[in-house]
Amino acid sequence: MPDSSELLALCKRRGFIWPSFEVYGGVAGMFDYGPLGCTLKNNIINVWRSIYKGEEKFVEIDSETISPRDVFKASGHIDGFSDLITYCQKCHTPFRADHLVEKFCKNPDKLSPGELEGLFAEHNVKCPECDGDLGQISEFNLMFKTSIGPGSIREGYLRPETAQGIFVNYLNLYRYNREKLPFGVIQIGKSYRNEIAPRQGMMRMREFNQMEAELFIDPEDKNWSKFKEIENEKLNLIPNTTLELTTITVGEAVERGVIANQVLAYFVYVTKRFLTTIGIDSDKLRFREHEKDEMAHYATDCWDAEVLLSYGWIEIVGIADRGCWDLSRHAKFSGQDMTYFRKYNSPKEVDITRIKAKNRAIGLKFKERAKDVMTEIESLKPENIKNGRITVSVGNETIELNEEFFEVILTKEKVTGDRIIPHVIEPSHGLDRILYSTLEHAYERDNEENRTILHFMPTVAPIKVGVFPLMEKDGLDKVAYKIYSDICSSGIEAYYDSSGTIGKRYARMDEIGTPWCITVDYETIEDKSNKETVTIRDRDTKEQKRIEIKSIKEILGRLLNNAKFASL
Amino acid sequence: MPDSSELLALCKRRGFIWPSFEVYGGVAGMFDYGPLGCTLKNNIINVWRSIYKGEEKFVEIDSETISPRDVFKASGHIDGFSDLITYCQKCHTPFRADHLVEKFCKNPDKLSPGELEGLFAEHNVKCPECDGDLGQISEFNLMFKTSIGPGSIREGYLRPETAQGIFVNYLNLYRYNREKLPFGVIQIGKSYRNEIAPRQGMMRMREFNQMEAELFIDPEDKNWSKFKEIENEKLNLIPNTTLELTTITVGEAVERGVIANQVLAYFVYVTKRFLTTIGIDSDKLRFREHEKDEMAHYATDCWDAEVLLSYGWIEIVGIADRGCWDLSRHAKFSGQDMTYFRKYNSPKEVDITRIKAKNRAIGLKFKERAKDVMTEIESLKPENIKNGRITVSVGNETIELNEEFFEVILTKEKVTGDRIIPHVIEPSHGLDRILYSTLEHAYERDNEENRTILHFMPTVAPIKVGVFPLMEKDGLDKVAYKIYSDICSSGIEAYYDSSGTIGKRYARMDEIGTPWCITVDYETIEDKSNKETVTIRDRDTKEQKRIEIKSIKEILGRLLNNAKFASL
Repeated sequence: MPDSSELLALCKRRGFIWPSFEVYGGVAGMFDYGPLGCTLKNNIINVWRSIYKGEEKFVEIDSETISPRDVFKASGHIDGFSDLITYCQKCHTPFRADHLVEKFCKNPDKLSPGELEGLFAEHNVKCPECDGDLGQISEFNLMFKTSIGPGSIREGYLRPETAQGIFVNYLNLYRYNREKLPFGVIQIGKSYRNEIAPRQGMMRMREFNQMEAELFIDPEDKNWSKFKEIENEKLNLIPNTTLELTTITVGEAVERGVIANQVLAYFVYVTKRFLTTIGIDSDKLRFREHEKDEMAHYATDCWDAEVLLSYGWIEIVGIADRGCWDLSRHAKFSGQDMTYFRKYNSPKEVDITRIKAKNRAIGLKFKERAKDVMTEIESLKPENIKNGRITVSVGNETIELNEEFFEVILTKEKVTGDRIIPHVIEPSHGLDRILYSTLEHAYERDNEENRTILHFMPTVAPIKVGVFPLMEKDGLDKVAYKIYSDICSSGIEAYYDSSGTIGKRYARMDEIGTPWCITVDYETIEDKSNKETVTIRDRDTKEQKRIEIKSIKEILGRLLNNAKFASL
Repeated sequence: MPDSSELLALCKRRGFIWPSFEVYGGVAGMFDYGPLGCTLKNNIINVWRSIYKGEEKFVEIDSETISPRDVFKASGHIDGFSDLITYCQKCHTPFRADHLVEKFCKNPDKLSPGELEGLFAEHNVKCPECDGDLGQISEFNLMFKTSIGPGSIREGYLRPETAQGIFVNYLNLYRYNREKLPFGVIQIGKSYRNEIAPRQGMMRMREFNQMEAELFIDPEDKNWSKFKEIENEKLNLIPNTTLELTTITVGEAVERGVIANQVLAYFVYVTKRFLTTIGIDSDKLRFREHEKDEMAHYATDCWDAEVLLSYGWIEIVGIADRGCWDLSRHAKFSGQDMTYFRKYNSPKEVDITRIKAKNRAIGLKFKERAKDVMTEIESLKPENIKNGRITVSVGNETIELNEEFFEVILTKEKVTGDRIIPHVIEPSHGLDRILYSTLEHAYERDNEENRTILHFMPTVAPIKVGVFPLMEKDGLDKVAYKIYSDICSSGIEAYYDSSGTIGKRYARMDEIGTPWCITVDYETIEDKSNKETVTIRDRDTKEQKRIEIKSIKEILGRLLNNAKFASL
């Protein structure tokens, strides 16, 4: 396991990750991706997108990062997305209250302000900076707040998750999918948490990247058509019933009720496949079920993908059955109908009570407005009758009517389906933590050889191939630069390096995880058989082969498609 | 030219662009990308990235969208990024002051508050909403403001451009490029402008997407190695000297001094190539030089790529020579050295005045601290001498020294280079406007056939191919769905449609710009020669061909590589 500060130093030095605004003293919990980090991130996104869009046929949207207050009032973030804060009364430093009692208590983030204050008193907790007294504990909402437009009339918040941008577009998405379930939607983008005191490097970022998927399904059908294909795959699970690690198949997990349903289990497996594809060590990956008191109140079941890092076991993906929580909240707060029309196999005949207009009485009284009044009356339901009267609006007028003008009738009607609020299965990915995990799991330090290697999977490696001239003369450099340019133009990331010994150049590429290096040497230009060849070297085995220049692109293509280097 | 409201209605109905938060009444100037818009956006980004990263060898970074105040104090956005605002005194509606006098004046956005108030009085301008009196005109800063961390101690702003994230990382990037110039950096991401009153659909968005490139170059060498390759290409230019459209070659433009230098002209051309590659009509594209009073005070030269849309000629890209403005400002405000070390061809011998420590006097007085004191003294420059004295810090102590302890000497030294602040060439792209332009330029309405077609370039079309079974029976649907799934898995966007007549399905695909449609019919399953074939139809010519199922992927590959449909 690498030391995280050693790894972060490498990341900074080589251009993966830079602390943001360092020339201005930096801001805690903020990081920029340098050239290698940005490419690594894009490569991880591409793998994820190819699974969710390409294979699972989800659609992708891109919604706004600033949202008006209404959205987060409905989602619950205005009222329930906060950490407990206390300020030192002397030096005014803010602290997360639960951080101050970690020594005395196992899960301090579950404590109430009262319980925390109790612990403060019991253990005489003081300000860690100046030993001053700590003030009252209060809630600090973690959303960044701003104003939309001039004045402070319209509150805006930076989204704490990309998911809500999908939920508020449910009606558009439902129409896009031609009013059928199930359908899946992904979004990749920035989210924001105004952390009180970020720590643990990239584990808690104030501005972070998410890849979220929301699958809208019929609540009464949580089976999944592709489940059969993967039911024999194994998962490392920690159920909340036993709290013990068990390795069972996806099929067994559903059969024994360990995972609530097929579709949830399917996406737990998809998560495992995604993570191992990008280089997460499957032996350092487990799925932990949320404990009962940890689960969001609306969630039916929730599993975290946890990876073993130098920080311990860290959650990097959450896969939750969110039930109908989000859509029903947005339906309620927006007044919109966010249901799905579920058609019966065959129409049902049902008894329905209706309000029927008494046409004659209405005609006599309302004359040319009669038709409008009748339509309004018949749009009402029996429960709209108050004290034997109903109220309708016609034009600008509100009219109260008694039973002279309407009656309640019982009819038999054919009903073709009913309206239900879909349930949502959400695999939610913390992209920055995932990226950091690929770095830790790829890291190897060989002290004997004084060599650092990042064993990236080729598919995510930011640079696929280094291209070197053996010497910067005799035309070797021109040939090498031409090869480099051709590789770049074909969309494969390459790096040209002509300085230092070849050994040093290999070491530089190993350190940033470049899987292969191509060297142009004197044989390249002097070969008498008229074949222009170069050497290609494998990062992990250090094996070298001679290949023809004209087949470089084809060979890189094969290697990137998982061909073995030894088979070249 | 399509009517923009008609086009936006199509975009909404078919899932390209949705007004944000519509279920909550919407927010002006905010739009979400639906499934088709998001894919179109990603496709445009990919073309741009392949040019700047793949061909021009820029590196890509991804920096934070929230920045502390220091950054925008240095960049000038705190003090000079505002519009003039006035509020109605009666209904309190805010207005952009210049919008209210557009009828009376050609370039109202250049007027001062005083000039605007003059025009208000002259024309008796009132509130357009309620006819109330308008209040004083003041400046409204267009950055969204927030607080980083608890309390409001640390002001944060949402970036108004991605560029500053590159500039503040200059030192990291300079090191990444091994301290050599030139080097180019791109960033793709969201930027924010808190518009007073957004209008014109997607032309003014409060949250928008940019693709910015910053090329750091030696100020004394603005030639460009690849210039020769493109100097005979033609450009439509409106220079600020004549204000008249002239079509000349890139070479002529530089030779005649129409465009300031080779590198700027090169990237004007790259911009043209990018825009026409993604489907901008070159006849509706021109480059207009900023007029003298329009140019930012720091810019040496600036050209806007303008396209003709239903809104008139609209700027979608700006290509500016920003000189050393940004780096020198950040150097000044951060106290960091943001220069580049330019090595001379051969070292120069120059006269240098230095401060030299008088070792003996220092040794006697400072004993074991003498060495530290000497080092400190010799790190100073003659200009640090004040009234014959210098001040040094050793340990925690500040020591003032007179000429007993140092002398000023004149030496001849070899200097290998000098330090200069690089200049920056910036092609800055408004991604949303570019995307909207591809929609307008692709749009065709055929009223006779009652058919709408988006003639997208295949490379940006969100769906590349529609796949249909002629009938949803006899196994045709199974074969079609298999073809669809295989195409999706290979990373090509496809759409499966089995409902309605084939004519209707073609029409649906034409309307969203899908270049090709594949239909599985009875010949597919009944062919006696044992060849499974399907029809493929071209959107623009409506031509159809029969191809084998097993060659679909290869044929799509060729078509996406610009093969002609007729040549299949």
